[in-house]
Amino acid sequence: MTTLCIANNRTEEMVGDLTGATPLEQLFAGCGAQRMLWWAEDGDVLVLPWGPDPEYLAYVAGLTGVRADSLTFVVPPPGAHGDQALTTDRLVDPGFLAELRRVLDGRTVDEVLAVSPNGAVAGLAAALGLAHAMPGLPFAAQGGNALVNSKAGFRALAAGVGVPIPPGTVAGSPAEVEAAVEQLLGQGHSVMLKVEYQVGGLGNEILARDEKVEAVGAERVVPLPDRAAVAAYVAERWTWLTGGRGQRVVVERYFPDCAPLYAQFLVDDAAVVLAGCGEMVMRPVVVGEITPPVTPDASVLAELVEQGARLCESLRVIGYRGTVSADAVLTPGGEIYFHETNGRLTGSSHLHDIFAARLLREEHRGSRHLLELAGLKVPSFAEAVAALGAAGLAFDPRTGTGVLFSNDFGPADGSVMYCVVAESPEAVRALESALLALFAG
Amino acid sequence: MTTLCIANNRTEEMVGDLTGATPLEQLFAGCGAQRMLWWAEDGDVLVLPWGPDPEYLAYVAGLTGVRADSLTFVVPPPGAHGDQALTTDRLVDPGFLAELRRVLDGRTVDEVLAVSPNGAVAGLAAALGLAHAMPGLPFAAQGGNALVNSKAGFRALAAGVGVPIPPGTVAGSPAEVEAAVEQLLGQGHSVMLKVEYQVGGLGNEILARDEKVEAVGAERVVPLPDRAAVAAYVAERWTWLTGGRGQRVVVERYFPDCAPLYAQFLVDDAAVVLAGCGEMVMRPVVVGEITPPVTPDASVLAELVEQGARLCESLRVIGYRGTVSADAVLTPGGEIYFHETNGRLTGSSHLHDIFAARLLREEHRGSRHLLELAGLKVPSFAEAVAALGAAGLAFDPRTGTGVLFSNDFGPADGSVMYCVVAESPEAVRALESALLALFAG
Repeated sequence: MTTLCIANNRTEEMVGDLTGATPLEQLFAGCGAQRMLWWAEDGDVLVLPWGPDPEYLAYVAGLTGVRADSLTFVVPPPGAHGDQALTTDRLVDPGFLAELRRVLDGRTVDEVLAVSPNGAVAGLAAALGLAHAMPGLPFAAQGGNALVNSKAGFRALAAGVGVPIPPGTVAGSPAEVEAAVEQLLGQGHSVMLKVEYQVGGLGNEILARDEKVEAVGAERVVPLPDRAAVAAYVAERWTWLTGGRGQRVVVERYFPDCAPLYAQFLVDDAAVVLAGCGEMVMRPVVVGEITPPVTPDASVLAELVEQGARLCESLRVIGYRGTVSADAVLTPGGEIYFHETNGRLTGSSHLHDIFAARLLREEHRGSRHLLELAGLKVPSFAEAVAALGAAGLAFDPRTGTGVLFSNDFGPADGSVMYCVVAESPEAVRALESALLALFAG
Repeated sequence: MTTLCIANNRTEEMVGDLTGATPLEQLFAGCGAQRMLWWAEDGDVLVLPWGPDPEYLAYVAGLTGVRADSLTFVVPPPGAHGDQALTTDRLVDPGFLAELRRVLDGRTVDEVLAVSPNGAVAGLAAALGLAHAMPGLPFAAQGGNALVNSKAGFRALAAGVGVPIPPGTVAGSPAEVEAAVEQLLGQGHSVMLKVEYQVGGLGNEILARDEKVEAVGAERVVPLPDRAAVAAYVAERWTWLTGGRGQRVVVERYFPDCAPLYAQFLVDDAAVVLAGCGEMVMRPVVVGEITPPVTPDASVLAELVEQGARLCESLRVIGYRGTVSADAVLTPGGEIYFHETNGRLTGSSHLHDIFAARLLREEHRGSRHLLELAGLKVPSFAEAVAALGAAGLAFDPRTGTGVLFSNDFGPADGSVMYCVVAESPEAVRALESALLALFAG
């Protein structure tokens, strides 16, 4: 049995108009796409934006136990947006399709696994005669993935099933945005504005009448002392707020000092199955996560999972199939508010699907804490792996502890994303300190 | 118990950007809104774009048995788009709100019934403390009504629950639209292009390589002999196709010589309940309907209802409450394809909710055929009613047959919409002939 893995890490359903990405952002996305290697099993076929770095491939395969030479990589020619994203134009390239057909000839594909199960993936699966291997194909083929990832659509779906969301609304005109913002500011609250499609808090801005608010989940706080300032802000930011193409804008109350949480699920034909929960690390937008979450107690965690599952059940009914992360904040007062669903393999999926489920042995599951962060500068991926081993810090399956390098961002900024696995939050922090010391200076 | 009726007959969820409507279109919409009078019961409060014409009010009340003087009408001041539509700005007018509060003071409102249960209605209900009377409020308040009426969103939801839709896709860029159109034309099919939000076929165009196709459900057929012509058409029509604000475009196979059908349901907290089915009369866009439908046999009708109910159940799960019309075509080959849902009181709702359910006596229900058409030119509404009575053609509750004037379009074009009720399709046509003869010349 073969899985066809499609590493389409940056799609319009995720970030809106792709033309807005800088070359560096594109490079980060391309590196992030390589994380698909963690999902590969012997004999799988992977469609990647570019061929894998041999050191990273060897490292991942060494940990997952996959024979690297059993994998087949197919890379389509660059498209209109370059060679870092698997855009629609790349996935319909005739030469690429011919090569993929040749590679798949004689294999039995039982799963099409994409980062973003969107219309382009549905079209590819249909063209390859693999509809049976993509249960969500009909929904995806008609643009359904945009619904699951829309921060505007989310609010209607969540409100419709009674899942708590921050007070606020979805606004379609500058006047509506202005009124909704002013209403919240006038009540003494700060405001989170969200672009309909974006990831990692990059499409968010916080507005405050009192500028002492700390930004979490957005890149900045914009002080707006009065309604005239709100109107001027909305006018100035209108193109950005609407994704440059008339999208709706989410206006909601911003809750400061919250713990940002998620519950991740796999939605299949029959059911919604919990993959795991986590707590995001924000500086000020997401740079990592820790799982299981540290802030919520058991009852809060149970509510997170229960409400998240209700959201996913709604998405299951309308036809989505695949991974869903339901994101929420936990206020200092103990209230949970959900603020988006992400229908894709997220920045946390490998922690649950691979690290916890495949790298950890049965006896260690449920008793390990994982902290993952991006941005550790290293001389090179290979040297970093060697140094980790020499220092005795590398992940060891026998103990179920140690450091994993989840992702190689070397080509973008010379960094790796690391995941520290240990038996307690304290042990995680101690191991992380040792890791940081190893690569300091 | 009081029902608060809100006659918001033309909203963005129905027709997209309201600034596109001509004064005459606006006047038609304003006249159409008066049809809300049919729903009124003793003591109800109606929010209308303008106060009812006394003759029309007396006529409707005479048939429904409602005391006209027990009704209260509240009309907000004109808004940015004039006085024919109940736009958001009109529904938040402080003077209007104050009057409505005064009118409602001391009454128990158990239902908020809107033509389009959209965010503006949800905001009004919330402001009046009537959330309990609008079960779909949470969903509507977050823009959910846009989902239910989006012809693009429809395709994902329908495909997701396995309800048959015409082959095609939802496209976001000129290149995607061009490719999708060319694919269908190249297969020898005609193409229906749909603007995401519009009513009555006014946002549709048919494209054909062979221009002998007859337009049904769209205003015209555009001959496009080759791909270059397709590209030029898409470029020229792009602003119109995207509603002037970056909306997605529906591209689907057009099936000629079809019977256009609908099944209408009421979606409430507990269930989806069939209101009735009908067959639309197209010249070339919808001008009326006949209920029950004449073309489909019992098994086709059963499938129409079953599949329509599945669509509505999906909308019920995500939180929509209210009337839904699921529209489909029946091909000459006997296949049913659904092509949109409309979450509102439609042009057919009064036939089922009022004419069949309230005007027809118990013993006549299920054995009457109703044909409704717009555009009968009359000297005036009052004279038309008088002439109908004098000719013995007026609807008589004792026989459950005769002619009803559903709507007065006098201010727009001097016409009325008529509904002929008789015991068989043949009797309907005979009665219609008598009616047309009465007002000929």
